[in-house]
Amino acid sequence: MISLADLQRRIHSGELSAEAAIAQSVAAIDAHEGTIGAFVCRAGEPRAAASGPLRGVAVGIKDIIDTSDMPTEMGSAIYRGWRPRADASVVMLLKQAGATVIGKTTTTAFAANDPTPTLNPHNHGHTPGGSSSGSAAAVAAGMIPLAVGTQTGGSVIRPASFCGVAAIKPSFNLLPRVGVKCFSWTLDTVGLFAAGVEDLACALAAITDRPELLPDAAVRTPRIGVVLQDFAGAPEAASEQALGIARVAAERAGASVRTLALPDIVAEAWRIHGTIQNFEAHQAFAWEYRENYDAMPPLLRGRLDDSRDIAPAAYDAARGVANRARRALFEVFNDVDVLLTFSAPGAAPKGLASTGDTKFNKLWTLMGVPCVNVSADVADGGLPVGVQVIARFGDDAGALNAARFVEKVLARG
Amino acid sequence: MISLADLQRRIHSGELSAEAAIAQSVAAIDAHEGTIGAFVCRAGEPRAAASGPLRGVAVGIKDIIDTSDMPTEMGSAIYRGWRPRADASVVMLLKQAGATVIGKTTTTAFAANDPTPTLNPHNHGHTPGGSSSGSAAAVAAGMIPLAVGTQTGGSVIRPASFCGVAAIKPSFNLLPRVGVKCFSWTLDTVGLFAAGVEDLACALAAITDRPELLPDAAVRTPRIGVVLQDFAGAPEAASEQALGIARVAAERAGASVRTLALPDIVAEAWRIHGTIQNFEAHQAFAWEYRENYDAMPPLLRGRLDDSRDIAPAAYDAARGVANRARRALFEVFNDVDVLLTFSAPGAAPKGLASTGDTKFNKLWTLMGVPCVNVSADVADGGLPVGVQVIARFGDDAGALNAARFVEKVLARG
Repeated sequence: MISLADLQRRIHSGELSAEAAIAQSVAAIDAHEGTIGAFVCRAGEPRAAASGPLRGVAVGIKDIIDTSDMPTEMGSAIYRGWRPRADASVVMLLKQAGATVIGKTTTTAFAANDPTPTLNPHNHGHTPGGSSSGSAAAVAAGMIPLAVGTQTGGSVIRPASFCGVAAIKPSFNLLPRVGVKCFSWTLDTVGLFAAGVEDLACALAAITDRPELLPDAAVRTPRIGVVLQDFAGAPEAASEQALGIARVAAERAGASVRTLALPDIVAEAWRIHGTIQNFEAHQAFAWEYRENYDAMPPLLRGRLDDSRDIAPAAYDAARGVANRARRALFEVFNDVDVLLTFSAPGAAPKGLASTGDTKFNKLWTLMGVPCVNVSADVADGGLPVGVQVIARFGDDAGALNAARFVEKVLARG
Repeated sequence: MISLADLQRRIHSGELSAEAAIAQSVAAIDAHEGTIGAFVCRAGEPRAAASGPLRGVAVGIKDIIDTSDMPTEMGSAIYRGWRPRADASVVMLLKQAGATVIGKTTTTAFAANDPTPTLNPHNHGHTPGGSSSGSAAAVAAGMIPLAVGTQTGGSVIRPASFCGVAAIKPSFNLLPRVGVKCFSWTLDTVGLFAAGVEDLACALAAITDRPELLPDAAVRTPRIGVVLQDFAGAPEAASEQALGIARVAAERAGASVRTLALPDIVAEAWRIHGTIQNFEAHQAFAWEYRENYDAMPPLLRGRLDDSRDIAPAAYDAARGVANRARRALFEVFNDVDVLLTFSAPGAAPKGLASTGDTKFNKLWTLMGVPCVNVSADVADGGLPVGVQVIARFGDDAGALNAARFVEKVLARG
């Protein structure tokens, strides 16, 4: 994989030109794209910017995010050839920071359930996960150092876990959603994929112009609360092992680690995530569902067919639960710096029919808290498995610091 | 003006056909549009729907809201001829409820400060207010029974006050913003204009499929807290008089009315509204500002030029203030059902150079609470003046009920 932080250092020192860095990504895409299928569209003649902390960084943009100079097709025939007028805000922020948009990455249709043909770079017989399939796979295959995705259930952290890359779903709205196709306005969150946690921190700091997100020279030892999310059911052995290994490695390195039970209201929030997502989806996709029913992607259409009867009162009650759970979760972080939990139920499922299950992600999306995937273990079949580091709302710096700690202690073996 | 509730009753009883109701609006637009200039685009051959509670209701859509069959030009040359692929969610909800989109209404450029040529129907030498200028003026001129607008500072309640129509800025996100051009994601709120408060209630209930918003047969007598918003400075005599008249009329009709001081943190929220709006605007308009600087509407461009230096930390602090203020305001409603305050500093200012001041609106937009304008008084020059009824977040039914009460007691004289 291409390390963004390493690229920055080499460009800054003059060892590598920004143009050469972009050319390196173009060559890597030429080499791997035919097999992996991570892109739906590539930039014609990508050029490096002259300045900016992300000059020389080739970035892939999930194809539900508007671009002014490339189509935005949402993974659906309904938007075949669609050309937005403007760049989405996050695309402009990337350009302002010097990044080069190298192409649009595959997305499950409307970032929902219908899969893409993208292959998992670690094992071509397995899904890369979704919905940000192409963004995770393109980074994992070493094609690009940075990619943008979105998460409404588990569409950033889960594919990152399946593809063995680092990813952050930042605090809600830290990265702007203007120009991003809406699934659920309460949940949709823009996130980033990169080779490692330091790379994520450098990218997020540059995009948001928040230097406090830059990685500190020294990684602080965090107080960690392990949560098992019993309400979501049990994970597979691979994820259980990954969490166990991460826990032991963190303890050995001197972190205080203890198992925490989450307040009941937080478990209740896990249960009502779908009520909020589906109620809002009926409004967000009203035009597609009503005016283009036959052309709708079948899994999303079925989901909407099955959720037509959510009453406004049920939705209002669900939002009340979410608000109370956010306040309760805030207090959990009085005693620990971060939570550590599963990134996914296990390694990437076999085949491409399903992109996997969001059950260990959806609570944290609803809570709006920053989540980082750290690649922790390699299961049978060469498939990676990640663990998820979660901090208090707004403490993206804390999430990234603790994730770097976990990444470091795991690397020590 | 055309009463939506009256139209519904006549269509329901068979006295009026839905087609005839639409034809009535077409004829009224033909008669007045040449003078008022409330529309930027009209539907080619508007037809009534066969069913739905809003069949026969011609609705105007502010031109920052996407329509699949008409251009959406945002009041700016940058979007000249722009055709979105999809209808905005609120447009689809209106169509599902049976309404007929009759045209796109004028908006200040990007719903910011640069005015439209629309005239105030009550006095052509005065502004109709903004940014939802055309929506307010079209209802006020009797062209249509319903129009959609948006409010980020005071863009629904203020033009309603200036034009003498009823309007609601509902609880934040009650009407979906998907497909509405973003100015500030924390603030932007979709709202409605109609002839009277009962009309608003019928429309909002139909669009949201929430029968609890339908007007009750009996109007309950509310407990009213009058707030003067001292932190915003003094109003002009016309608004002071309007509030005084409404207060006295409510007291005479048996309402408990008392003057309330708002908690300090709420006044602080009033002060930081602009920090949030402008910080987010730099991201929301990143493409327009960076790639189309010369074509930007001059007042909005100047505003962005002047607010380039808002630090992320100042924005974060402002959001913290807003959250604390929302909680404090919630408690204020333990003792009263609604607040009553000014809708605008006075009657519509002379000329078209400015659409007026948001100072009595912006706090409530930031608080996300439902606000209803009730036309209360007519000042010199035939210009109306409104008062603003405000309820707790989520209590849109309470806001509408109390606004009907105020409207009724004012009508008694």
